[in-house]
Amino acid sequence: MQYAKPLLKLIEGFQKFPGVGPKSAQRMAFHLLKMDAKEVDDFSKVIVEAKTTIKKCSVCQNLSAVTPCEMCSGSSRDQSCICVVSESKNLLAIERTNEYKGSYHVLGGIISPIDGIGPEHLSIKELLGRISQNNLKEIILALDTSTEGEATTLYLHRLLSPLCKKITRLAFGLPVGTEIEYADEITLTRALENRTEL
Amino acid sequence: MQYAKPLLKLIEGFQKFPGVGPKSAQRMAFHLLKMDAKEVDDFSKVIVEAKTTIKKCSVCQNLSAVTPCEMCSGSSRDQSCICVVSESKNLLAIERTNEYKGSYHVLGGIISPIDGIGPEHLSIKELLGRISQNNLKEIILALDTSTEGEATTLYLHRLLSPLCKKITRLAFGLPVGTEIEYADEITLTRALENRTEL
Repeated sequence: MQYAKPLLKLIEGFQKFPGVGPKSAQRMAFHLLKMDAKEVDDFSKVIVEAKTTIKKCSVCQNLSAVTPCEMCSGSSRDQSCICVVSESKNLLAIERTNEYKGSYHVLGGIISPIDGIGPEHLSIKELLGRISQNNLKEIILALDTSTEGEATTLYLHRLLSPLCKKITRLAFGLPVGTEIEYADEITLTRALENRTEL
Repeated sequence: MQYAKPLLKLIEGFQKFPGVGPKSAQRMAFHLLKMDAKEVDDFSKVIVEAKTTIKKCSVCQNLSAVTPCEMCSGSSRDQSCICVVSESKNLLAIERTNEYKGSYHVLGGIISPIDGIGPEHLSIKELLGRISQNNLKEIILALDTSTEGEATTLYLHRLLSPLCKKITRLAFGLPVGTEIEYADEITLTRALENRTEL
């Protein structure tokens, strides 16, 4: 005896998502069976709708329902500054600071030879196209500070420095609200090196 | 700036599932956008198919694509013994032991006043109906050993004892492979009380 086939297929379907193991998938499937028929129907439509309408913006490569996206087509954002991020979610994180008014470029990943991701898999060609067309004042490299992120930052810096005078990166240092006692040595070294005058 | 509306709706859709927070929902939504269009389409169909075809078996209340389910309609299972479980997944867990050849009854939950679940919300009426129709030899109460599970076991025992001579429950004791040192006092007390002769 095992689960009925449609239920098994549903569990398998959920299990394909990242971070969803057999137990979570089972839990989600049972939850779905307890939902209203209408709610389930709506959810299935939302899935297909998102997949069919969400595309990459032809300019900044961010996920958007229209292309070019709002940020690239409007005049509200400073197009002379490009902030390079690896994924859309990082763009959103920077937007939440309400600090940055320039434009973005989403790479679609970071260079990671171990996962078979080289520069050719990222939207670097599109970035070079934008740089040649615009009169850029600054490129901000806002990538993760992991080993892969650092390698991508260095790669992009070497590639872009002949094309743009000012290339910056996010500051290293102590996160706000932490105790120095618990900071790791590398972070503390960087925080010391980059100390600012009061 | 925030995510495009179809993407927001997708993230919200995933967030309705148990154990899925905002970050996981976002991760799942991005994964879905990276899947093939066909795969997404199939997944949306699997969802609706599962919801429309999976029903409760009219006899044992287990989730099934046909009613009565295989176990209740065939002659392969001993109908004179009913094992009472709270959810379908517990039924499956017992099936995996390959030890039990009787029939099942799925309550659809356990009595939990704090969650507003009383006996009237469980399929107890259906269980009483089955008991009156069949010549039962044994009812096994296989519920969780949590407080709510215990309360439900006691409630069912009181309700069913006039109707069936033999009512049993799963044994308390040490889980296989544990060290006595780490067993909690209550478990060890039960293991001592229920000690078996070698």
